[in-house]
Amino acid sequence: MKELKVGIIGFGTVGAGVASCLLKNAGVIEKRTGVKTVLTRIADLDITSDRGVQVPDGILTTSVKELIDVCDIVVELIGGTTKSKEFILEALKKGKTVVTANKALLAEHGEELFRTAEANHVTVHYEASVAGGIPIIKSLREGFVGNRINRIYGILNGTCNYIFTRMEREKLGFQDVLTDAQRLGYAEANPSLDIDGFDTAHKAAILASLAYGKWFGMKPVYVEGIRNVSLEEIRNAEELGYKVKLLAIIKKDEKDAVEIRVHPTLVPEESPIAGISDVFNGVMVNGDFVGNTLFYGRGAGREATASAVVSDIVDAALNLANGCPERLQSFREGALYSELIPMSDIESRYYLRITVEDKPGVLGKIATLLSNYNVSISSLMQRNRNSEEEVSIIILTHMALESEVQKAVRMINQFPEVKSPINLIRIEDL
Amino acid sequence: MKELKVGIIGFGTVGAGVASCLLKNAGVIEKRTGVKTVLTRIADLDITSDRGVQVPDGILTTSVKELIDVCDIVVELIGGTTKSKEFILEALKKGKTVVTANKALLAEHGEELFRTAEANHVTVHYEASVAGGIPIIKSLREGFVGNRINRIYGILNGTCNYIFTRMEREKLGFQDVLTDAQRLGYAEANPSLDIDGFDTAHKAAILASLAYGKWFGMKPVYVEGIRNVSLEEIRNAEELGYKVKLLAIIKKDEKDAVEIRVHPTLVPEESPIAGISDVFNGVMVNGDFVGNTLFYGRGAGREATASAVVSDIVDAALNLANGCPERLQSFREGALYSELIPMSDIESRYYLRITVEDKPGVLGKIATLLSNYNVSISSLMQRNRNSEEEVSIIILTHMALESEVQKAVRMINQFPEVKSPINLIRIEDL
Repeated sequence: MKELKVGIIGFGTVGAGVASCLLKNAGVIEKRTGVKTVLTRIADLDITSDRGVQVPDGILTTSVKELIDVCDIVVELIGGTTKSKEFILEALKKGKTVVTANKALLAEHGEELFRTAEANHVTVHYEASVAGGIPIIKSLREGFVGNRINRIYGILNGTCNYIFTRMEREKLGFQDVLTDAQRLGYAEANPSLDIDGFDTAHKAAILASLAYGKWFGMKPVYVEGIRNVSLEEIRNAEELGYKVKLLAIIKKDEKDAVEIRVHPTLVPEESPIAGISDVFNGVMVNGDFVGNTLFYGRGAGREATASAVVSDIVDAALNLANGCPERLQSFREGALYSELIPMSDIESRYYLRITVEDKPGVLGKIATLLSNYNVSISSLMQRNRNSEEEVSIIILTHMALESEVQKAVRMINQFPEVKSPINLIRIEDL
Repeated sequence: MKELKVGIIGFGTVGAGVASCLLKNAGVIEKRTGVKTVLTRIADLDITSDRGVQVPDGILTTSVKELIDVCDIVVELIGGTTKSKEFILEALKKGKTVVTANKALLAEHGEELFRTAEANHVTVHYEASVAGGIPIIKSLREGFVGNRINRIYGILNGTCNYIFTRMEREKLGFQDVLTDAQRLGYAEANPSLDIDGFDTAHKAAILASLAYGKWFGMKPVYVEGIRNVSLEEIRNAEELGYKVKLLAIIKKDEKDAVEIRVHPTLVPEESPIAGISDVFNGVMVNGDFVGNTLFYGRGAGREATASAVVSDIVDAALNLANGCPERLQSFREGALYSELIPMSDIESRYYLRITVEDKPGVLGKIATLLSNYNVSISSLMQRNRNSEEEVSIIILTHMALESEVQKAVRMINQFPEVKSPINLIRIEDL
């Protein structure tokens, strides 16, 4: 039986999970595949702290160089985009197959890594970079290989989904939930990467690239985080039959033009994606043959991420053991789209909450202005606020052009009767 | 670029779907993988009827032998277990890679096919045999390769799920919905394979085999169909917070003993699997690292099945093009369980509906008898029927032993006060 030597760079949470999975389930993997994945080295600056995993003697090292030299499969789990990139490039140049969970690195430097892998006749595997334990990369690349991808909707950040779920269930404000989430370890001390949408955007860039055959990077991804979604928005959405989710939206139109965007989104409460709550992730893929599919599971965490990393390790091991290290390239260029649609040109439905003085004529003024920008109203709800002189007008629009809506919003914000900037959330009827 | 010749045996609904997918999306596949999958032959007894797909001249043939000779990848889509088996064995013996969607054949004769494939250094691929377009076979074998599988719950038959969904929504009886489903083409003229649970059982046998490393066949699978689930059961379930689903249940206990069963099941209405309605399929997999995951999509139909068949064709093509035809064996024996639990020894919760004469003392008699068999009641509901003298007693039990429950049911059925045999449905709290 063929043995493959596996080295893990980074003995943090995920690194410890991968080590634990490889050690606990080596027998399972061997029975299923006929290859042995042997944990041979773990490199970290700190090789003395207890990570709760009993590793074999002599495998801990502080030398990444030595790890790369002795291992067949190099697993990068240190995160960041500097050292990690350096280590991966070094491993690839030495002809080692690489596994990584590093979405930021891939989104930003994927092309360079893939080019280096190709030049050295090896591959980079990255199942764990999107949606944790859900095998979405494999499903997109292999399971749906015969499909043109029409749409992908993803809830890809557990922290944001957890915050929305708690706001909704406990009727708490954004900041209160965030603070509590930080206390409980569901949000980072510096939560920006998650709540400002960048983490989701990295993952959206990867999924879009796989769907449309071009490594897009972050540039074409429109990103808006969740800081401005107040409890009032969540309550109003609920009353209108929607839930609020931070959604990655990847779509192509009839002319094969593609849009990639990440922003808070109202989704119909009866849609399967609305039912994905707490820290769970979910991805909906629509292909021209497969139709609608949905995947649901843990998007992060030591164990779920380890499951994905180990599936990559085994894929790599099967390739190496069978003499086909490049069976499926890390990524293959070949555009399956016509052009990218800039954010200003997308069309969507919109939720607008406008806080105005309670005076006659205001509503008419707003409706007229929206209509001047070809924004037509599909429903309207008026709410008295605590203050007697203010009311909230909640408008849902029909499909409208983003640039027109933004112009209309800017104009309305300048009305003297408007008391605070409009809250705008896009609607996706899935 | 490497070209692989693909031959389809059986130009029926799925065959036409696969042909259409290969023809329409050949360019997509080529861009994504670097291999060309060329539709080279389609064999059928009838090569003149219009299937709505424009195929290249000269590829239709009535000779399966000729197809096998000229193609690299042979796709069996005729169904049944006689001719299909013969053709597959012939192809394998000639060193051809085989793709099939034939769950009945696999469940019953998988071992022989896999042995023959191994002896000839090729493989059999069968993604489309379970849950149509959902890549559940690939996910189980590859995505979750590093996990011990604790549980699989599957809604695997679209016809049954469609019938339950309509009974529930339209408050119609089983027979009415079945007749209408037959008229609409959602149920076969002879619906037994679907509604008596055998189709689900074939799929359960395949999933269990992949999870536990032993090709089980149909023998250890307990099967119960949906004919006896009346509208009254569905209504009562709803009132109690459950939905009725035909569920494939595959579980292992702490001692690694495995149970495989298919029967109507009450599932909590808030569980994600309860939300899978109409003809959709859904599979929940729990692995020791990945935790709970759920897959959802179309389980049947020309296009969705074609998507799965084509993913197998591409997998096979990548193996052949890269000189690793046996990269992942069709199936690899290697038991990951200790023993099979016979149905009589399983433990479950139960829903029992007992129609009795409305006389004092009956309830006490029933409760005492259940208690004698260690069946304890978790909740109880009494219902007046149309007739004044009859009432329905609906009992939900705590966990109890199947054999004891069955004995108790037999005893209670003999009470003179009991007017018709007890309706029993197992409950799974997921």
